Amino acid sequence: MKVITNPKQSEWSELLKRPTKSIEEIENTVVEIFEDVKNNGNSAIIKYTQLFDECHLKSIEVSQEEINDAAKRVSNTLKSAIKIAKQNISKFHEAQKTKAIKVMTTKGVKCWQEKRPIQKIGLYIPGGTAPLFSTVLMLAIPAQIAGVKDIILCSPPNNKGKIPDEILYTAQLCRVTKILKVGGIQAIAGMTFGTSTIPKVYKIFGPGNQFVTVAKQLATKFDVAIDMPAGPSELMVVADDTAKSNYIASDLLSQAEHGPDSQVILISTSKSLINKVKQDIMEQLRFLPRKEIAQKAIENSKLIYVNSKEVALELVNEYAPEHIIICTGSNEFFTDNITNAGSVFIGNFTPESAGDYASGTNHTLPTNGHSKAYSGVNLDSFTKSITFQHITKEGLQNIGNTIEVMANAEGLEAHKNAVTIRMKDITKDN
Amino acid sequence: MKVITNPKQSEWSELLKRPTKSIEEIENTVVEIFEDVKNNGNSAIIKYTQLFDECHLKSIEVSQEEINDAAKRVSNTLKSAIKIAKQNISKFHEAQKTKAIKVMTTKGVKCWQEKRPIQKIGLYIPGGTAPLFSTVLMLAIPAQIAGVKDIILCSPPNNKGKIPDEILYTAQLCRVTKILKVGGIQAIAGMTFGTSTIPKVYKIFGPGNQFVTVAKQLATKFDVAIDMPAGPSELMVVADDTAKSNYIASDLLSQAEHGPDSQVILISTSKSLINKVKQDIMEQLRFLPRKEIAQKAIENSKLIYVNSKEVALELVNEYAPEHIIICTGSNEFFTDNITNAGSVFIGNFTPESAGDYASGTNHTLPTNGHSKAYSGVNLDSFTKSITFQHITKEGLQNIGNTIEVMANAEGLEAHKNAVTIRMKDITKDN
Repeated sequence: MKVITNPKQSEWSELLKRPTKSIEEIENTVVEIFEDVKNNGNSAIIKYTQLFDECHLKSIEVSQEEINDAAKRVSNTLKSAIKIAKQNISKFHEAQKTKAIKVMTTKGVKCWQEKRPIQKIGLYIPGGTAPLFSTVLMLAIPAQIAGVKDIILCSPPNNKGKIPDEILYTAQLCRVTKILKVGGIQAIAGMTFGTSTIPKVYKIFGPGNQFVTVAKQLATKFDVAIDMPAGPSELMVVADDTAKSNYIASDLLSQAEHGPDSQVILISTSKSLINKVKQDIMEQLRFLPRKEIAQKAIENSKLIYVNSKEVALELVNEYAPEHIIICTGSNEFFTDNITNAGSVFIGNFTPESAGDYASGTNHTLPTNGHSKAYSGVNLDSFTKSITFQHITKEGLQNIGNTIEVMANAEGLEAHKNAVTIRMKDITKDN
Repeated sequence: MKVITNPKQSEWSELLKRPTKSIEEIENTVVEIFEDVKNNGNSAIIKYTQLFDECHLKSIEVSQEEINDAAKRVSNTLKSAIKIAKQNISKFHEAQKTKAIKVMTTKGVKCWQEKRPIQKIGLYIPGGTAPLFSTVLMLAIPAQIAGVKDIILCSPPNNKGKIPDEILYTAQLCRVTKILKVGGIQAIAGMTFGTSTIPKVYKIFGPGNQFVTVAKQLATKFDVAIDMPAGPSELMVVADDTAKSNYIASDLLSQAEHGPDSQVILISTSKSLINKVKQDIMEQLRFLPRKEIAQKAIENSKLIYVNSKEVALELVNEYAPEHIIICTGSNEFFTDNITNAGSVFIGNFTPESAGDYASGTNHTLPTNGHSKAYSGVNLDSFTKSITFQHITKEGLQNIGNTIEVMANAEGLEAHKNAVTIRMKDITKDN
């Protein structure tokens, strides 16, 4: 933990810098695997699954029987928890539905905007030590509410050829259309090009390691959209003496346990709070099963003392955190004026983990400063807006001349002519 | 023009294929210029402006005096047309404003979503034979309505060091913050890294040639967002005997004049309409100033006869056109069931050029099949949604156990602990 006191504005950019990783070496591998999957489909998929997941699969599609068996093995306690979370996530994302926006911009000129679901999407759920079924909830629930037709899920199998029960159970609960035992670069390549088993999709969602991140970026070159660029998870906390130091410590640690590269920053106008948080972190760290991971992230964490809430706010907006907890005597000052953040958690009883699982908000959020320009995943991530217009004869008479003048000034005579040819008929008819 | 009759579904993918371009050669140039601008700022910018625009600039920023002079030279007729267009575009984009969405997902758990403006954006307006001031309207108007703070505009100077009067006038009218005489790759690089004159922005909007397209794609690697991937403009028309062939011909030509690589497709259930459109195109083409460009695009155009409106609809959704005109006896069937399109124009008196200039809808739209997953530019393109949550003691008691169970099942004990530590205090207090 580094304690920094009143950093000069000229030092902010260095202070708030995220560690950058060279991805160039990875890029070649990703390009190679994409090429192979594009040309050789399933046989390439099976080859890389053998290589990376150490598992030889006859069939990469999860059968209904496997799903049913998995569901039986999930405890009722966990099932209930998942259902409560699903209810809250559904409520919050249902509320994001919008109606068509219709405007008569000029008499006879009717314009409207409607959102329509993306027809085919792919969800990537990472493997690893823990089954990230919560991410299945966060992606499949809004997809289903938006009306997406085909929801494909790819997740790497373990060396016995299995995907965790919790993931299969949750995927079925959220009406995922097809589940595939494919992970890593080959999963993203499969959903980009399609194979005889993996459907080609229009947009890919979900987190992953740096290989998956680079693969998703490459997918965009082949005209597949992605949810957002990814990066290590982050938590910033702004707190003063109204905050409880042991709560803050627990939140910082919950972020730190994600991985050694997790970003953890506390900003405070209270030196005594900073000291107490420091002590509480050391205290709580001892009892964590993932303490080695958390310790590494905590070593790189920053506890920044600043003189005023105004400076704290500026630091927040400069950093553009993925998650931010606000626990101060003037919470509204912050919530009203934050311009860059993924998700904001307010007050002593709003831990960040609430948003990770069950409060209802989405946990797929922009990291690495991307909240300056990107939204977190929300209902609109699964739709696109289409505009429509209908112009009557009268409408064209009202705006026709404007179009003609502008098209002419841009040197586009055929654009002008498409109006002129119609206007002549209208004049003749009158 | 190729007339195709009842193509088999197995041939669709070939039939609807857009020409692909190799961008690898360009990529090296783009990477090199990015590196140079990153390291050498303005001096690199000025060097490439000399090289590509054949113009040596002392200052790359447009002065207020230049803007005032330019405004004096724009005719009153054009000024009025631009103002009418601005009014309609403003009305349509104002109507897209949304309120915060607030939901109590569980008693004591308040979640909300608010849209906040992106603070700094860059607009790229291409140079070339004609001044594309209409694109200034389409990007700067919604940016201003959304509340974007800094709106930077880059456009290449001619060899006399000037940006067209119409662009300067329109930029000032739409309250662009800063106008820079920089074009091409160096403009995108400048807005990506920032120089002593060009501000670094969070998101870059606007069309451009293939150099600009590749540069925008590269910018995303440096954490700058872009509006959408670009490609040659496209128009698909679905028409039957209720359509007027000379109107359809004029629309197809208005698309064709954009460039030799413009995509022009007519789908019809009427063979006689196809024949008449073919004749009308040849007739109208003769009188166009840009007929050589249009001719090339028309040579590659496709007129497709199909048996039924159902097949026509399937072709539309498979192609996912940027613009589509629907002129049939069953327009509603199409508008209700189109899933993939950028902007839809309905009926005999709704030429595509209306949406290019003055009806109110945006003309920055997804090409190259991207409308399967991307929206055209709209008010939301200039904002990001941020989620907020506030949980009371009671709220945490209601969902705390759910979070604990789920965090535990994902092996994230520190996530669980952030809840447990608070729950203990709440229980103690009660």
